[in-house]
Amino acid sequence: RVDLRSDTVTAPSDEMREAAAGAPVGDDVYGEDPSVNDLEATATDVLGTEAALYLPSGTMANQTAARVHTERGQEAIVEAESHVVRYENAGFAQHSGLQLRPIDAGEKGVPSAAAVAAAYVADDLHRPGTGLLCLENTHNAKGGLVATPGEIAAAAEAAHERGVPVHLDGARLANAAVAADEPLAAFAEPVDSVSLCLSKGLGAPVGTVLAGSEAFVERARGVRKLLGGGLRQAGLIAAPARLALTENVERLADDHANAERLAAGLDALDGLRAPTPETNIVLVDVADAAFDAETFVERCADVGVLAGAMDAETVRFCTHLDVDRAGVETARSRVADVV
Amino acid sequence: RVDLRSDTVTAPSDEMREAAAGAPVGDDVYGEDPSVNDLEATATDVLGTEAALYLPSGTMANQTAARVHTERGQEAIVEAESHVVRYENAGFAQHSGLQLRPIDAGEKGVPSAAAVAAAYVADDLHRPGTGLLCLENTHNAKGGLVATPGEIAAAAEAAHERGVPVHLDGARLANAAVAADEPLAAFAEPVDSVSLCLSKGLGAPVGTVLAGSEAFVERARGVRKLLGGGLRQAGLIAAPARLALTENVERLADDHANAERLAAGLDALDGLRAPTPETNIVLVDVADAAFDAETFVERCADVGVLAGAMDAETVRFCTHLDVDRAGVETARSRVADVV
Amino acid sequence: RVDLRSDTVTAPSDEMREAAAGAPVGDDVYGEDPSVNDLEATATDVLGTEAALYLPSGTMANQTAARVHTERGQEAIVEAESHVVRYENAGFAQHSGLQLRPIDAGEKGVPSAAAVAAAYVADDLHRPGTGLLCLENTHNAKGGLVATPGEIAAAAEAAHERGVPVHLDGARLANAAVAADEPLAAFAEPVDSVSLCLSKGLGAPVGTVLAGSEAFVERARGVRKLLGGGLRQAGLIAAPARLALTENVERLADDHANAERLAAGLDALDGLRAPTPETNIVLVDVADAAFDAETFVERCADVGVLAGAMDAETVRFCTHLDVDRAGVETARSRVADVV
Amino acid sequence: RVDLRSDTVTAPSDEMREAAAGAPVGDDVYGEDPSVNDLEATATDVLGTEAALYLPSGTMANQTAARVHTERGQEAIVEAESHVVRYENAGFAQHSGLQLRPIDAGEKGVPSAAAVAAAYVADDLHRPGTGLLCLENTHNAKGGLVATPGEIAAAAEAAHERGVPVHLDGARLANAAVAADEPLAAFAEPVDSVSLCLSKGLGAPVGTVLAGSEAFVERARGVRKLLGGGLRQAGLIAAPARLALTENVERLADDHANAERLAAGLDALDGLRAPTPETNIVLVDVADAAFDAETFVERCADVGVLAGAMDAETVRFCTHLDVDRAGVETARSRVADVV
Ligand SMILES: [Ca+2]
Ligand SMILES: [Ca+2]
Ligand SMILES: [Ca+2]
Ligand SMILES: [Ca+2]
Ligand SMILES: [Ca+2]
Ligand SMILES: [Ca+2]
Repeated sequence: RVDLRSDTVTAPSDEMREAAAGAPVGDDVYGEDPSVNDLEATATDVLGTEAALYLPSGTMANQTAARVHTERGQEAIVEAESHVVRYENAGFAQHSGLQLRPIDAGEKGVPSAAAVAAAYVADDLHRPGTGLLCLENTHNAKGGLVATPGEIAAAAEAAHERGVPVHLDGARLANAAVAADEPLAAFAEPVDSVSLCLSKGLGAPVGTVLAGSEAFVERARGVRKLLGGGLRQAGLIAAPARLALTENVERLADDHANAERLAAGLDALDGLRAPTPETNIVLVDVADAAFDAETFVERCADVGVLAGAMDAETVRFCTHLDVDRAGVETARSRVADVV
Repeated sequence: RVDLRSDTVTAPSDEMREAAAGAPVGDDVYGEDPSVNDLEATATDVLGTEAALYLPSGTMANQTAARVHTERGQEAIVEAESHVVRYENAGFAQHSGLQLRPIDAGEKGVPSAAAVAAAYVADDLHRPGTGLLCLENTHNAKGGLVATPGEIAAAAEAAHERGVPVHLDGARLANAAVAADEPLAAFAEPVDSVSLCLSKGLGAPVGTVLAGSEAFVERARGVRKLLGGGLRQAGLIAAPARLALTENVERLADDHANAERLAAGLDALDGLRAPTPETNIVLVDVADAAFDAETFVERCADVGVLAGAMDAETVRFCTHLDVDRAGVETARSRVADVV
Repeated sequence: RVDLRSDTVTAPSDEMREAAAGAPVGDDVYGEDPSVNDLEATATDVLGTEAALYLPSGTMANQTAARVHTERGQEAIVEAESHVVRYENAGFAQHSGLQLRPIDAGEKGVPSAAAVAAAYVADDLHRPGTGLLCLENTHNAKGGLVATPGEIAAAAEAAHERGVPVHLDGARLANAAVAADEPLAAFAEPVDSVSLCLSKGLGAPVGTVLAGSEAFVERARGVRKLLGGGLRQAGLIAAPARLALTENVERLADDHANAERLAAGLDALDGLRAPTPETNIVLVDVADAAFDAETFVERCADVGVLAGAMDAETVRFCTHLDVDRAGVETARSRVADVV
Repeated sequence: RVDLRSDTVTAPSDEMREAAAGAPVGDDVYGEDPSVNDLEATATDVLGTEAALYLPSGTMANQTAARVHTERGQEAIVEAESHVVRYENAGFAQHSGLQLRPIDAGEKGVPSAAAVAAAYVADDLHRPGTGLLCLENTHNAKGGLVATPGEIAAAAEAAHERGVPVHLDGARLANAAVAADEPLAAFAEPVDSVSLCLSKGLGAPVGTVLAGSEAFVERARGVRKLLGGGLRQAGLIAAPARLALTENVERLADDHANAERLAAGLDALDGLRAPTPETNIVLVDVADAAFDAETFVERCADVGVLAGAMDAETVRFCTHLDVDRAGVETARSRVADVV
């Protein structure tokens, strides 16, 4: 079985399991878990922020950031197909009373400064105005598109000029950093808060860090509590999560190379179109095939290759550290048999 | 002074004032105000629904409908520039926990069946799915555009096929009915609830009716109470509001003719573009003029013609029963002096 | 029929109807309705505040005040049987995300300073802390109990010392003022906001004023919009409402005398206990009678006397300007026949 | 250092660490983590329910249950000093729009059937009515008070007769079971949902199970996602958490005996009163001492004994598996030195 459904399926390495077993722990609700504190300090360093917080999931990180930055009734500018729009249960509305202002960034994952400026709304009696710009990098639903630090900064500046804070959903920011050959901190620098998932391509079992100023993180800690994200002896998962951050960033280049190889192989097949990916996400367009996305996913599963349908005509394959080059070749050849 | 800022500025007629003075009243929270009951019965007849409810404002009517139709966390499909998006303080998010899915209907005010179908989202673990389609007719921000009953029905059917209820924001539905030469009930028939503002072109001092099935209106009554919209001896405003519904629908044709005349007059001026309006809203594009929208509004005000800026390049003039043909001619000639 | 269910059933006088018919009006959403402005100025004077706002209902006034004063997740100290607890659809939770901390004020309607101090909670990681003290005067459910300005001030001071703002639900504050022989402003002085219903004993058809500082009222205007309480030519109801405030305060003494007379008459009947009321609300305890509250209400209704059951053993009779002394005597003698 | 602040400080045993290191894992958002599934199956067995769900915290479990059981605007009957009132950031209001109806259960932790019946409110136009009864067993703030299955059943029946669902916050339900010598399932049987914290006295590093019917758990899974509680390779913490459930229940008797011993020792000291505890929580009343609670906590800390102030006059000591009889004796004698 070659599981390419998501990089969330990555299993912890032996080193991570050993780290879990030997982790010094304490009660993190009291701020006393050394492994959590260690992870948060490492994340602070890597992201170049004042502080960082460990949370159970990327969804909680994004929702927490939105809640801290905004007031009820404001608008959040979001890319139309971003994760917070598609996969977070309308959390911006439910947790923070925010109205979405989605903008389609088209071929890019992050909107231009001009698009941000156009989407900005000042407050008046009828509308509380724009309260947040939320970016996503890499952009999952558009196939792992990378925005450079410069592109992030341009969008963020358009928001900041209008007094609007910026959150960067960095679920796969490490993939962006590797692809753009830039340090993670370069992406965090222009924004007010940034999340980074450790349990996706980086291979941690559980968790996400949310980073920003000390004042931001202090308030985020309160929101995490409200959402039920205060953990106790979290060192057991924070210790392996820290290894994800210190050991597994560089190797994402392998996943990217594997994704490129896979895309080329699939694109060569009749009826499939798979543009060269920028990172580890391969989107396959089956519009010209004799089957729809669901059917294609089923046929692949029948031969032990797992993928996921994004919509009626698009299937996503996601490379990660548990599938090596041989696995990718296997996947390609098996898929060839069923197309 | 010729006030063309909005048809909300319409003042009650002498007949309305007499109706107010002589209105039989009771406590409407107990359902005992005869004038309110009379108005609701009339609205029920005119709209062809099972029941109707009198509310203080169009905003409350729309917010109430959304709350009744949906569950927290669902998505509401809305036209991108509709009133519920622009002017209701993010109420869908705040009152009902709804995530907006705005779609741009382009040259039309009401999206096509295909656009509705494309915007529909099924529920799964990550998203509660589409819970409402909200239409607006006429469409204010696009210049009083009219959708026919057939266009309403097409969009509504696309929603109903997917189990999604439909609310029609009919703030200016009477304008649509007159322009399309169709009875109001023809627009209400395809949808699950419809609002109709009485205090705009119809000239009532205060209020909006919200109509639908008996079960819908019963639940709407509870939401109205939650929002603080339960009134006491409301007959004083319901009696004149009823006259708005029985006496002032047909005459909207005059407003439409006046709007057409005004648009032609303004369009003839240097730097102004004013397409022929479908109803009573004239949008003037000042992109080619030497001034921006705010400046134009100020210059008009200096000569006693009141209008409103919609955005940096668009100014809205709205005809209504308190401005007759002579008033429109006056407005046109005065504006000509300042352009 | 003698209707003693509530003082909300009061019908507008001929003078009020004339005021409605002749009211100068404008669009109050633009702040241009002279009759509304006049009412708000009068309320500002009478209550001695910086500003005041006219709203459709007492519920909207209380909910608006809570929203302006607080942040999500705070606690509101409320009397356990106050109107905001019993009759406002959990609005504090729904509109403002507030957790209730009800305290039973016992024989009084307003809690003591000590009780407020004991209910106060400081904020920490686990609880955002107390954000509001909400008082009610007179206290409806306890039978129109009066708190003096001194009692209001004592409770308010306990809150203010802890940084907690105070809202006074003055639905029947005019009754308290008359009973205590104190000006309305004396009750408003110690608090941060105060509502005053015009449509209860004061006899207006519709509406409540909410008063406080200019900054408070400016923010309240935005919340009123959010709740759908922005009215258009509201002068038609604001003009008679102003008469309620200028003409009908003093005469509440008659209602109080009538209530005292009625209570004495009912208390003399077998099985009924009716303590001497402080204002216009007579609570009759039927615990020792052969019937429960609902049955008693029905029997009264059979002889044309309307009252309301508060709970299984308590029935409320409410005097007001539409029932004179003769009406009260009629009510008493008819009730005597059915006990 | 003897840490008696809370049983949440319990550190995982060597067996638990080994279980973590060797846990089979998968992506639990896909339902594919064998260790999580194993834990949930075990919890289902132990609690005698149809299904169970693993969540990051007890707060998330309680908030999830409330959200699943209720509709916006309903009331939740809660014990006045229960955890959901004191320590969950007004979550019932914020996440579920619920109004609290706190009742003081006095000497007991769980209210009587009569108290529940008295607190019940039927829905009408003004209030949506009671939507939840939330019980807590053992009751933390009252000193680990135990309710028997019969007491739980009595309160639950009073709710069920009125159509109200019941959630049991069983953060320390295992302590209740051991103290009452009843199986866990006997407490779960009368209620609609039950949480059980694994990271308190049971010694797991992280997590709580929430159990109920299959339909309940399916909906709870969606709410967990909304709150950001969907974890990935959660087996690393679920495997040790399962050991908490299978290995550490019986031994809570030792904690109870230690608590009794500690209470007796402290009660013997001048100025301290410490009633015999029912489980593992010792509340020490310092009202008669020369110091307040905070000062007492500080003095204890100075000699390496950690406790927590509950309020100005009450200090809590909590026994658990990381403090044996010798530790308790040490604590007692050191405290004696500083009183
Ligand atoms: Ca992983
Ligand atoms: Ca191809
Ligand atoms: Ca009008
Ligand atoms: Ca032109
Ligand atoms: Ca009245
Ligand atoms: Ca633990």
